[in-house]
Amino acid sequence: MHGFRHSRLGQVIALSIVAASMPVQAAKVTVLTASRIHTMDTARPRAQAMAFDDGGAILALGETAALLKQYPKATRIDVGNATVAPGLIDAHGHVAGLGLARLRADLVDTRSKADVLQRLRDFARDLPPGAWLLGRGWDQNDWPEKHFPTAADLDAAFPDRPVWLSRVDGHAAWGNTAAMRIVKRDLRGDWQPDGGQILRDAQGAPTGLFIDAAMDLVESAMPAMDATTTERALVLGMQSAVEHGLTGVHDAGVSLTQLQAYQRLADRKAMPLRVYAMADGDGAALDALCRNGLYRHAGGRLEMRALKLFADGALGSRGAAMLEPYSDDHANSGLLLMKPEELDRVTTKARDCGVQVATHAIGDRGNREVLDAYAKALGSTQPAEYRWRIEHAQILSPTDLPRLAPLGVIASMQPTHATSDMPWAEDRVGPARIVGAYAWRQLRDSGTRLALGSDFPVESVDPRLGLYAATTRADGDGLPVGGWHPEDKLTAFEALRGFTLDAAYAGFAEARVGSLVPGKRADFIVLKQDPLAIPPAGLRTLDVQATYVDGRPVYQATR
Amino acid sequence: MHGFRHSRLGQVIALSIVAASMPVQAAKVTVLTASRIHTMDTARPRAQAMAFDDGGAILALGETAALLKQYPKATRIDVGNATVAPGLIDAHGHVAGLGLARLRADLVDTRSKADVLQRLRDFARDLPPGAWLLGRGWDQNDWPEKHFPTAADLDAAFPDRPVWLSRVDGHAAWGNTAAMRIVKRDLRGDWQPDGGQILRDAQGAPTGLFIDAAMDLVESAMPAMDATTTERALVLGMQSAVEHGLTGVHDAGVSLTQLQAYQRLADRKAMPLRVYAMADGDGAALDALCRNGLYRHAGGRLEMRALKLFADGALGSRGAAMLEPYSDDHANSGLLLMKPEELDRVTTKARDCGVQVATHAIGDRGNREVLDAYAKALGSTQPAEYRWRIEHAQILSPTDLPRLAPLGVIASMQPTHATSDMPWAEDRVGPARIVGAYAWRQLRDSGTRLALGSDFPVESVDPRLGLYAATTRADGDGLPVGGWHPEDKLTAFEALRGFTLDAAYAGFAEARVGSLVPGKRADFIVLKQDPLAIPPAGLRTLDVQATYVDGRPVYQATR
Repeated sequence: MHGFRHSRLGQVIALSIVAASMPVQAAKVTVLTASRIHTMDTARPRAQAMAFDDGGAILALGETAALLKQYPKATRIDVGNATVAPGLIDAHGHVAGLGLARLRADLVDTRSKADVLQRLRDFARDLPPGAWLLGRGWDQNDWPEKHFPTAADLDAAFPDRPVWLSRVDGHAAWGNTAAMRIVKRDLRGDWQPDGGQILRDAQGAPTGLFIDAAMDLVESAMPAMDATTTERALVLGMQSAVEHGLTGVHDAGVSLTQLQAYQRLADRKAMPLRVYAMADGDGAALDALCRNGLYRHAGGRLEMRALKLFADGALGSRGAAMLEPYSDDHANSGLLLMKPEELDRVTTKARDCGVQVATHAIGDRGNREVLDAYAKALGSTQPAEYRWRIEHAQILSPTDLPRLAPLGVIASMQPTHATSDMPWAEDRVGPARIVGAYAWRQLRDSGTRLALGSDFPVESVDPRLGLYAATTRADGDGLPVGGWHPEDKLTAFEALRGFTLDAAYAGFAEARVGSLVPGKRADFIVLKQDPLAIPPAGLRTLDVQATYVDGRPVYQATR
Repeated sequence: MHGFRHSRLGQVIALSIVAASMPVQAAKVTVLTASRIHTMDTARPRAQAMAFDDGGAILALGETAALLKQYPKATRIDVGNATVAPGLIDAHGHVAGLGLARLRADLVDTRSKADVLQRLRDFARDLPPGAWLLGRGWDQNDWPEKHFPTAADLDAAFPDRPVWLSRVDGHAAWGNTAAMRIVKRDLRGDWQPDGGQILRDAQGAPTGLFIDAAMDLVESAMPAMDATTTERALVLGMQSAVEHGLTGVHDAGVSLTQLQAYQRLADRKAMPLRVYAMADGDGAALDALCRNGLYRHAGGRLEMRALKLFADGALGSRGAAMLEPYSDDHANSGLLLMKPEELDRVTTKARDCGVQVATHAIGDRGNREVLDAYAKALGSTQPAEYRWRIEHAQILSPTDLPRLAPLGVIASMQPTHATSDMPWAEDRVGPARIVGAYAWRQLRDSGTRLALGSDFPVESVDPRLGLYAATTRADGDGLPVGGWHPEDKLTAFEALRGFTLDAAYAGFAEARVGSLVPGKRADFIVLKQDPLAIPPAGLRTLDVQATYVDGRPVYQATR
């Protein structure tokens, strides 16, 4: 794999400081002026003007008159009454998935199976005969009958074309008979794959619904995505991200092949934002990190130094591993996707390679297993320096809530998951366990750092929805009035910090991005409204007027 | 002093648990039902019904149907659409001062010296000849000329009657010539009292303005307040508190004489709320605590186990001790009211007596001295168990902000101070130091517990104003738009916790009050609106419909 530098953290940072300070000397300077610049820098929370050089390094912040005097020949950008904030960083998304969503049938917000079939028929019109019909985003909780669909629901409309439809959370898939036909192993009987489940009828025949690891049975047999499609998906995904004000994304699960696609884009300067890639499990990408050292592309927009693992499944499909059975399914406690000893082995391997670990954990058992494994691997000597993360950290036992902070474990959470799940989450786990769910404030109170994100395309890539959900805990209609479990709301400032400085910290990037401070990169957004001044209800309709990365616009609204 | 029990913390708590559980057995039970009960209990944040016995102990919380079934013979109180919350606790007020304010000329919000004189003339009509005319609440920052007034401003109107007028912050007083005449020592010359300042003109004559300890020169010579007046002031102050939804007050500076007045009221069951009294410095009350042990009245409404000290003065009068000179008075760095070695001596004495220390500190130097003294006195072995407090913790150096949490020091802060001071606070300390001022969020982020209060009568006793200021950092008109330093705003839940559970913790009372949990006391308020559901702008006009202490109404709105 080309482009890996033989370096560990210290060297990477040293190199970047040299690179950032080089162009300052005789550089062309831009002075940006705004109604208000929220820097997210504690020592100087606000400014009216910011100077940066044409290499994209911030030179100074302050009053307009002072900066114009200091840089009399500077190019001037005045955004008028607009507010400037650091570029938003989504600490957990799936860029290829976001791009692919545009190449797949969108089943989000379907209200019935009939609705699904109608969308599939429309989408299939443009597909060549025999090509797989891929879709994503269905959620049986949105349908009248609320139970899992079957292959039979699809077979009448699609007797020959394979159809494969991921659930909204990505933890279950619904296939037709043509899709199941590609699996070599007989899907009938009573066997189950490790960490997954094939749903079967009373006769032992598969119903067409596959949970977690069982999805691999079909997906590993599907025709592979070619390099061009991969690049196209990444480009589409990144474009969508910058249009929403993102200047950085932590891509939660990137294969070596995908990383190579990113590298080609980075070499061609075709990456509009920064991607912090996490290697997808104990595979080729992790091995490359262990062999060659932590990776950063010289252009500063691509990095891989983290590992993404899955401890369990999702709550919607009852795949999240719970300490006690589900409140609405007493025979089921969910699934651990990795055995504790396997989690220990891989986290130890990552630690020894200097690689940050970020593990998906939704259920209270999933989270406990991860905390146990992290505590074992990190030991008691400055565990916080590793900055290991729990992705989602969705439902925690009250006894585990205070365990993150002393380990320095970052909670990488997605505010919109709370507001998407709130109609049924308490059905799943009951009134006692729900108290430790989506518990942003309780985690903050225990000293845990929150890195915020969206989990796009599971949720919308739009970070405004995350800022809104974090501060209101309400849906788009403002319901429930006053918010769901309002005690766990964040302030607008905390929400913004979760999408900027604390997300940067979670990616070891707080010395370069996440706040607007001399020496850091000029990654920022221009907003018509001031997100810290308007009522939180207005955060979901903020107008993103422009997105800048390294001092250059990567998106500008057309109005 | 009667009523002191020979006990230390452990015994006091043991006794109170026995007392609280005694009446449960055959007690008359009340079931209260409401639209929503915010318990402030993490394990069960909300309920619809609460049962308590006629001893005032909470028996159960839950769904209405379940509690009515459990207590079929219970008296029923249904507050309809109203919301119930734990009774509010003001962690820093001055009850006698609040009551006395009704016995003194009110000079708050005077717009000029002429305005002051008019109010004094009106007030003096009811006074007997020769009686002192006392007033409080003036603030020269509200006047056109913004400099300190003089005795001459008063002498024409009051040539013979002594006039003594405290500044709004209580850290300066303005007297006329008749008032200065009672001081035996010659006030002319160039001498100054320790920890205070007599303002003098070019000829060395006193102008009539006395700062901090200099106020004692006049006040110690004034005729003493008699016992009847003291009791009357306490009763007036407590009545005003419960009318605003307070069920507890930490009285920040209570003399032995005042404590005795409280004890007489407690004996007569004439205390409508709980008072956590702090001994007023190294005097008779502290000596009594050291001699007789921590004090709690058997009725559960009066306690003294803390010591109030003053490290420095106030910001408005530039008496707060700063590490560097004031930005608007380069020759002045404020005043330390206690030398470091004196602070060490008294804090060590308090520690050895098992007494909690609560020290007023406004300036960054004042706060640093207190942290230094606390660190020295508490040592490194579980300092948090002492729960020592800094009162106001108003301006902290960035290096001191993170020092509170590891010492377990509680920041006892008054949200309305921020919104009262915001028009001029940055003039006093400049743009760099203002960042560490009124820094609620930064303190929370560092793990510090915030106990909230008002400092009444310096600010209004109305805790709704504190909830509003904490969540908006704006004045009554909502200005500045979006709030002053919005990054330090609290959520409504955090603000409510600061006025309930965390205030209770600051008074070692979280096992008895501060949240609604079986076994705790039924101290609660009934609010027309849900404070966690309405926009923060509505918090200042919440309707307090009733205040209950020990399960009995101590205030009910007349509508």
